Amino acid sequence: MTHPDLTLLRTPPKAPTTLRWTGTALDLLDQTRLPQEVTYRRCEDGEAVREAIVTLQVRGAPAIGLAAAWGLALAMGEKDDLEPNAWRSALEAAADRLRSARPTAVNLAWALAQQLKAIDGAGLSGAPGRALLTETAARLQSEDERVCATLGAYGASVIPDGARILTHCNAGALAVAAWGTATAPMYHMQAEGRPFKVFADETRPVLQGARLTAFELAQAGIDVTLITDSMAAHLMSRGEIDLVIVGTDRVTANGDVVNKIGTLSVAIAAKHFSIPFWVACPLSTYDPATAEGSDVPIEERAPEEVTHLGGQRIAAQAPVRNPAFDVTPAALVTGGIITEAGIARPPVGAALAELTAS
Amino acid sequence: MTHPDLTLLRTPPKAPTTLRWTGTALDLLDQTRLPQEVTYRRCEDGEAVREAIVTLQVRGAPAIGLAAAWGLALAMGEKDDLEPNAWRSALEAAADRLRSARPTAVNLAWALAQQLKAIDGAGLSGAPGRALLTETAARLQSEDERVCATLGAYGASVIPDGARILTHCNAGALAVAAWGTATAPMYHMQAEGRPFKVFADETRPVLQGARLTAFELAQAGIDVTLITDSMAAHLMSRGEIDLVIVGTDRVTANGDVVNKIGTLSVAIAAKHFSIPFWVACPLSTYDPATAEGSDVPIEERAPEEVTHLGGQRIAAQAPVRNPAFDVTPAALVTGGIITEAGIARPPVGAALAELTAS
Repeated sequence: MTHPDLTLLRTPPKAPTTLRWTGTALDLLDQTRLPQEVTYRRCEDGEAVREAIVTLQVRGAPAIGLAAAWGLALAMGEKDDLEPNAWRSALEAAADRLRSARPTAVNLAWALAQQLKAIDGAGLSGAPGRALLTETAARLQSEDERVCATLGAYGASVIPDGARILTHCNAGALAVAAWGTATAPMYHMQAEGRPFKVFADETRPVLQGARLTAFELAQAGIDVTLITDSMAAHLMSRGEIDLVIVGTDRVTANGDVVNKIGTLSVAIAAKHFSIPFWVACPLSTYDPATAEGSDVPIEERAPEEVTHLGGQRIAAQAPVRNPAFDVTPAALVTGGIITEAGIARPPVGAALAELTAS
Repeated sequence: MTHPDLTLLRTPPKAPTTLRWTGTALDLLDQTRLPQEVTYRRCEDGEAVREAIVTLQVRGAPAIGLAAAWGLALAMGEKDDLEPNAWRSALEAAADRLRSARPTAVNLAWALAQQLKAIDGAGLSGAPGRALLTETAARLQSEDERVCATLGAYGASVIPDGARILTHCNAGALAVAAWGTATAPMYHMQAEGRPFKVFADETRPVLQGARLTAFELAQAGIDVTLITDSMAAHLMSRGEIDLVIVGTDRVTANGDVVNKIGTLSVAIAAKHFSIPFWVACPLSTYDPATAEGSDVPIEERAPEEVTHLGGQRIAAQAPVRNPAFDVTPAALVTGGIITEAGIARPPVGAALAELTAS
């Protein structure tokens, strides 16, 4: 596979930036206020970053990891004068504190481990140690940007001009440093000046599509139309959707795709109407150690996500099921899986194994 | 086809009654306050009934028609002393006034026409005319009950014990005088003491499933679990749903089913997982004059239904599509269409033509 042209992606996307390092502080786009308000929370120490993670002001696994990496640099701000051993202990404690913000987010632990590895590799402490933490955070952020930008270029290469694209949930710029995963091909096509249109599923119960995807695409000047999840099949039946592209939380060895609840429903409808179904994700999401989707436990979340909205009850008193994810079998991924190493075409499980082996 | 046993249906369903005639007034369950409050609005004249229809305190085409039929009797309450011609003119004016409450609801006009036909057939006016209006309203209401009860008995005959039933929107007791259409087989099975379980799709954007179906089934003591629309396919993939049953707004000559947006999505998923998909409706819903579903215009409703809930904005500023209905092709109605004359098995278009010809 030839490497895609990334020239266009030197321009940042027009969507609001999720994380912004000022040189002395981290500005985080407060996602709890979206879409009503675009406000940034300025974090000047590690505790502020931790609180932003706990309160979901920053969400999306990659964005949480990057926030924590910057947070660790901030947490060491007043500690330049400590002896090397004391500095290293303080670093460990600060990392533990940040890690506890959302213990299940893999990228959070991963980003902090990268920081500790860099420090231990260089054997630094004090002010030079802190400078390295800042450097490493910046490197992780630009790696995330590069991976997403590459996904975008590969993705754009398989989307026809004028395509009407359906997406589900938010695998967007707001979940990462820039570009997003499922949205990266859209930003790439926009930069190329190519025409296309997006339909965003609202994504009940948490409304990531209505609140975040519709928001970031509209802000970026992309032609986006919001629909409820139940309207996707109807639009497909009327010939109004040409392809589907979504992100994913995990791809298993056989190519099954674990993603936000509702993805399976869209994939089945796409198959019914012979509409290509694509997935875009970094290779870090590929989990060859898990055989298939049915091996992945599906988290059931609080019933209030379904029965309440904005503090108001919107449903009758009745038992509720609230699975947060579903499994789209590899056979329904009829387009392919777009990664930074190229595109895995069906059968996607075998193709992913080949891409990562090379 | 043998006639079903309706003995059980002499007991009214345990769900709250939609319309209740007191002898001198009409009590309407105020559906705008559901599910938070179960309150009845007492209507003592025609204007009160009209206002209840306009403000959606009563909804569901059959229920609106019945409310108007009772409303016409109430509207003539102070007019017993009028001369026959003046009485007939006043009746016409009162019917016009009620008809204007929701000009597009077919059952509203139909029920008022039944009233005028009864009066003109009997040549009555004054107090005897008014008594006939009350009698006719009562007759229309018991016909509606009988039709739904019969649907229920036929439907229950094809549902296995222990079935886990998925339904979409509210084709329930709250839309009619009693029993509902899609819910009638559930109430019948409950009366028979047979075990079953219901999953109710919340039915975005207007949440008829969350607010009304979950409410009426829970009130009736039926085992109902609320899910978002996007969860239906996931539950099917896990073997947790045995059959689907929905109502319909119109069935075209070829057997296509026009129903609440989201029905098509459920039907496609049911087909994918080989789960029977059933429709329950009175024969008055069958429209042999329209060839197929694509001939039926799909109403696009206000974007605020998608972007707002309880007066609060829940979505980003972006264009919205809001089709209120979709078309499920006859081929996806794999169970059949349950009517008061019996069950139309696939191919359902031909079977309906046969049922109505006999």
